[in-house]
Amino acid sequence: MNGIFITFEGPDGAGKTTQLQKLAQELKKLGHDVLVTREPGGTSISDKIRGIILDPVNAEMVDQAEVLLYAASRAQHVHEKILPALKAGRIVLCDRFIDASVAYQSYGLGVDIDTVKSISKFASSGLQATRTYIMDVPVEVSMQRLNHRAGGGGSDQQLDRIEQKNVDYHSRVRAGFHQIAEDHPERVRMIDANRAAELIAEDVWLDCRQLLEEHISV
Amino acid sequence: MNGIFITFEGPDGAGKTTQLQKLAQELKKLGHDVLVTREPGGTSISDKIRGIILDPVNAEMVDQAEVLLYAASRAQHVHEKILPALKAGRIVLCDRFIDASVAYQSYGLGVDIDTVKSISKFASSGLQATRTYIMDVPVEVSMQRLNHRAGGGGSDQQLDRIEQKNVDYHSRVRAGFHQIAEDHPERVRMIDANRAAELIAEDVWLDCRQLLEEHISV
Repeated sequence: MNGIFITFEGPDGAGKTTQLQKLAQELKKLGHDVLVTREPGGTSISDKIRGIILDPVNAEMVDQAEVLLYAASRAQHVHEKILPALKAGRIVLCDRFIDASVAYQSYGLGVDIDTVKSISKFASSGLQATRTYIMDVPVEVSMQRLNHRAGGGGSDQQLDRIEQKNVDYHSRVRAGFHQIAEDHPERVRMIDANRAAELIAEDVWLDCRQLLEEHISV
Repeated sequence: MNGIFITFEGPDGAGKTTQLQKLAQELKKLGHDVLVTREPGGTSISDKIRGIILDPVNAEMVDQAEVLLYAASRAQHVHEKILPALKAGRIVLCDRFIDASVAYQSYGLGVDIDTVKSISKFASSGLQATRTYIMDVPVEVSMQRLNHRAGGGGSDQQLDRIEQKNVDYHSRVRAGFHQIAEDHPERVRMIDANRAAELIAEDVWLDCRQLLEEHISV
């Protein structure tokens, strides 16, 4: 496995996708072969599963089904797309991964954390990110941005099933991300994402350049 | 929990569905309140998941995803439909349940048996069948019946993704069902299903009547 696997985590509305795209551009400028992908989704089968997970029509979904659907989507994504790319030496940037399951399903929904971790491990055949950037913003900020996305600016986009959950839930999720960062200091970088996108991107790029140097020198 | 949960297992083409319907009729004649259901499926969300599992288009599905999708479908089915029916004192007849995951995914595909069991347990919150009837037929017979269903009789129905797997796989699955019956003699009844439907139904009904008497006398 010669590639580097970098994940972006944090709530919707924290700017994950923007930062991931900016990092991909920087890496490509340096000539790196980059694969940008996302969870849930990333393959044809995973996208079908994603459709079931996020559709507001499926409001009666029980927590166990949600955990298992995310894991199923991940299993397909990891084996069909991420592992082959890493084996080919590419840098894989993934929007959400296992930390999202732990934060949303264990800290958010209250599903036993060891169960979520062992199901995720089975799904991903033990694959771990080399580096994880958590985009941290206060809950009010991420929810405000989401509501703006959904209602404002002439957009008719609706909030999905996960986004519709309440503030308490999203506060527990944020606390979960903080705990994950504390538990894995060697892998996880907590980024203050309540700033201008350019400043955030600078922090990410600074850390990532160092990661690349370490990786090359190994 | 006052209801009785009865599952039917065995390969496609062994006559499971016919026997389940016959038993349902007998039970209804006696005035029992019966719910007939099936896996994968049984609820709106489960049926969407079933669609992904069985669609031959999804040939690239990895084993981990298959295991997790079956479990996700089961989680929704158990919590939304089976548990409420059992709590209301109904008799639930279910076409396939956890034994099918163990037989097809562990014995058939080779996925670690403890993993499959623990994921199934999480999905079903520990629910077990009161009685399980395994319809046993030689692999050649079940495959012949399936091929007939698919090609013969003017039907244009195609074999689904699971049915298309080869004879070796289906032999391992059959051996798995035999092992399950051996491991759980108190719960599982192995039925010789390579006989006329009426004879099979007699055996099932004989055993089920006894089960009902035991249940009532408790």
